[in-house]
Amino acid sequence: MTNFKKAVCIISGGMDSALGAKIAKNEGYDLIAIHFNYGQRTEKKELVCFHNIAKELGCSESYSIDLDFFKQIGASALTDRSLTVPTTGVEAGVPITYVPFRNGIFISIATAIAEKHGAEALFIGVVEEDSSGYPDCRDEYIKSMEKSINLGTKDETKLEIKMPLVHMKKHEIVTKSLALGVPLKDTWSCYQNEKKACGICDSCRLRLNGFKLAGVIDPIKYV
Amino acid sequence: MTNFKKAVCIISGGMDSALGAKIAKNEGYDLIAIHFNYGQRTEKKELVCFHNIAKELGCSESYSIDLDFFKQIGASALTDRSLTVPTTGVEAGVPITYVPFRNGIFISIATAIAEKHGAEALFIGVVEEDSSGYPDCRDEYIKSMEKSINLGTKDETKLEIKMPLVHMKKHEIVTKSLALGVPLKDTWSCYQNEKKACGICDSCRLRLNGFKLAGVIDPIKYV
Repeated sequence: MTNFKKAVCIISGGMDSALGAKIAKNEGYDLIAIHFNYGQRTEKKELVCFHNIAKELGCSESYSIDLDFFKQIGASALTDRSLTVPTTGVEAGVPITYVPFRNGIFISIATAIAEKHGAEALFIGVVEEDSSGYPDCRDEYIKSMEKSINLGTKDETKLEIKMPLVHMKKHEIVTKSLALGVPLKDTWSCYQNEKKACGICDSCRLRLNGFKLAGVIDPIKYV
Repeated sequence: MTNFKKAVCIISGGMDSALGAKIAKNEGYDLIAIHFNYGQRTEKKELVCFHNIAKELGCSESYSIDLDFFKQIGASALTDRSLTVPTTGVEAGVPITYVPFRNGIFISIATAIAEKHGAEALFIGVVEEDSSGYPDCRDEYIKSMEKSINLGTKDETKLEIKMPLVHMKKHEIVTKSLALGVPLKDTWSCYQNEKKACGICDSCRLRLNGFKLAGVIDPIKYV
């Protein structure tokens, strides 16, 4: 037990949540790292990245949570192998890679862990505009969820959801990550490959565009 | 595929959610039954009850979802075997049987399933006053969560959370269940036993008191 204020940080293995966790660290929180294995195509690679990020950030606690039921639900190209990950460019609307209410489920589980540990903040690396267009990444949703959480937990549980990246552009995320020393080499964004990133799925495109606009070379390997 | 309006129903195996699902059925919904195995002490018994209830209600789809991570989180006498289930009577405040944000997690997963199937209602058997005093059973919380869900899912997803029992007393639940033909013999409430209910945990006390006030004999076996 420490006397520091505590924050739970959802860390996916990608750039955004890694920067979010670094910002939490810089704000003086003692970090509780949370990662979800939900049957996504790049599950193993993301888990390795999570462990490296949590280690570099010096998180005091670490939860790697298996959520096998996402495969049971399916309905997304990330969790259902019979669907194809789109590679022709980011389009308007909610893409087939959307996993129904994924962040709602992640936030709810992170809330339970926060309540257990008496954490006062929950960090999530959602990005609203410069993103794949998932509804559970919206500022308005997260703010509403914060209210719900505080109504649905013990009266002494006061949890603030922090989303420091929500209105950032990808290139700003790259620039800020480099400025704060976030280990971008230990992050993974590709939706479909685990060894060399494909470079053509929506997530790779958004990442590569961010690096391009920031004028920096991405340190991870591409096909 | 049917043309009926669809509802997802969280069915725990207890009386309350069984009545909630029966009410959904009577309102003309095509039912999608959802049950959670979360490492609770009476997991096996509740699962058997769930299957019987879902069968009697003629649910068109059925999800039995394993949530092993609740044991990883613990912090409740229902999921942590090193803690003791209280048997001396229902007291004020949030009891040690409270599982942090359990209903938040259940509702979030049920939302994902509802979104997949295009369901328009989610039924949950929460009871606010005549209950164990869990914060995630409050009317105000559930109403807030409904708003959050509709902000965090696709624009075409419109989900109403229905909680027909929230302001009912246990004896009213017993009376209404009997009136509607809910199979109370196939429900289980005890927190700690799977063969014969203990009769002295909070959940047994609330159930037995409900039957007593309703002037009816409980059909399940007690120690």
